[in-house]
Amino acid sequence: MNTTIAIIGGTGNLGSALAWRLARAGKDVVIGSRTAQSAADKAAELGHGLRGMTNADAAAAAGIVMVTVPFVAQAQTLAEIAPHVAGKIVVDTTVPLMPPKVMRVQLPAEGSAAACAAAVLGDGVRLVSGFHNVAAHKLAQDIDVACDILVFGDDKAARAEVVALADAIGLRGIHAGALVNAAAAEAMTSLLIFINKNYRVDGAGIRITGELQPFA
Amino acid sequence: MNTTIAIIGGTGNLGSALAWRLARAGKDVVIGSRTAQSAADKAAELGHGLRGMTNADAAAAAGIVMVTVPFVAQAQTLAEIAPHVAGKIVVDTTVPLMPPKVMRVQLPAEGSAAACAAAVLGDGVRLVSGFHNVAAHKLAQDIDVACDILVFGDDKAARAEVVALADAIGLRGIHAGALVNAAAAEAMTSLLIFINKNYRVDGAGIRITGELQPFA
Repeated sequence: MNTTIAIIGGTGNLGSALAWRLARAGKDVVIGSRTAQSAADKAAELGHGLRGMTNADAAAAAGIVMVTVPFVAQAQTLAEIAPHVAGKIVVDTTVPLMPPKVMRVQLPAEGSAAACAAAVLGDGVRLVSGFHNVAAHKLAQDIDVACDILVFGDDKAARAEVVALADAIGLRGIHAGALVNAAAAEAMTSLLIFINKNYRVDGAGIRITGELQPFA
Repeated sequence: MNTTIAIIGGTGNLGSALAWRLARAGKDVVIGSRTAQSAADKAAELGHGLRGMTNADAAAAAGIVMVTVPFVAQAQTLAEIAPHVAGKIVVDTTVPLMPPKVMRVQLPAEGSAAACAAAVLGDGVRLVSGFHNVAAHKLAQDIDVACDILVFGDDKAARAEVVALADAIGLRGIHAGALVNAAAAEAMTSLLIFINKNYRVDGAGIRITGELQPFA
C-alpha cells in the first residue's frame, strides 16, 4: 500500500501544521499547492524531508490525500484532484465557515462540508472527515494540543487509518460515526471561534470526557 | 422578578435530574408533566421542596421555563405552554434524535431543534438553548459530571441567566453564541451516543479546552 500522505492546500495554516507534524512523526509527506514553487518553498521551510508539488501531482503521488483548503475553495480543489484519488483515502478537513460571520453556524444545504465533498468525489473514493476543531497555530508548535480529533466516515477501515494518523501526531483520534456526523464537528468550529473571542482564549479545543475503552 | 423554575417534562430522565439538582441548589423548582398526579409523585420522590403540577400550570407559575421533552413531543409541548411564557426565559434542551438511528446526526430542516422552538414560540419569548450533551443518569447522581454546558441564545442577558444556572448545579455553563449555533451541540449528542456504544463509555461528555477568561 502507498503510505505517502499528500496535504492538499499544504501551504495554509492547517495544512502546513499537519504536514510538519506528520513528517516529524516519520511519515512520507508531500505538500501540494496551486503552484509547485510555493509548495516546494513551504516544504523547504518546514524541513523533515517534506517535498512540494502541485495539488494534482501531490494527490497522484500519495495513498492518503488530506484536503485542507477554505470552504470557498473546496469544490474546485476537489475537482482538480478527483482524477488522481480513485480508491484512495481522502481526508476532508473543510469547515463551512462563511465570512464575515464565522462565529455563526452556517451549515451548507447538503448538511455538511463532508457531504459536499462526497458529492464532488462520488463513490470511488474512501472519504473520511476530520481535524475540524484543532487550532492550526497550536498544531504548528511543539506543544501538547489539548484537542481531540473527531473522525467521521462510512468506510470504517479508512476511518481507522485516519484515527491512527491523529494518534501518530500526538493528538487523540476518536471514531465519531458516519460521514454525515461531520456536521457536528464542522459546526463546533464556529462555537470555538466565538469562545476564543469572547473568553479571550488562545485556541480553544474540545475533549470527549469519560473512560473510553478500546474501540470495538 | 419571578425566579421560580419550571421543568416541563420534568418526570423524564433529564428533566427530573435537572429539577433535583436545581432544587438541591436552593432554587424554587416546579415539575411539570402531562398530568398533575405524575408530576406530584415525581416531586415527592425527589424531595428538596419540589412541587408538581401540569406542564401548563408549571409554566404559568415560573419565570424560567425549561423544556425537557423528546423531539417528537417538542412542538406540541411548546404549543401547550406558549400561552403562559410571554416575556419569560424559555430554555429548550431538545435534541433532534430520530429513533432508531440515534447515533446519526439528523438535524431538522429548520437547522436545529432550537430553531423549531423559535418557530413555535415566536419573538415574545426570551429563548435560550442548552443542556444537550449532559448524560441525564450522571446528572441525577451526586457526582462530578465531567461535561460543559454550551448555552445558546440571541438574548445575551437571558443566556447569562442560564449559564449561571448551569454553574449553580455544579456544571460549567459556557456562552456559545447565537441560538442558531445550537445545531452544533444538538448534533454532538448523536456523536456521544455513538462513542458511548463503541467505546463502552458510561455517559461521555464534552469539555471546552483552553484558558477561558471571564466572559466579556
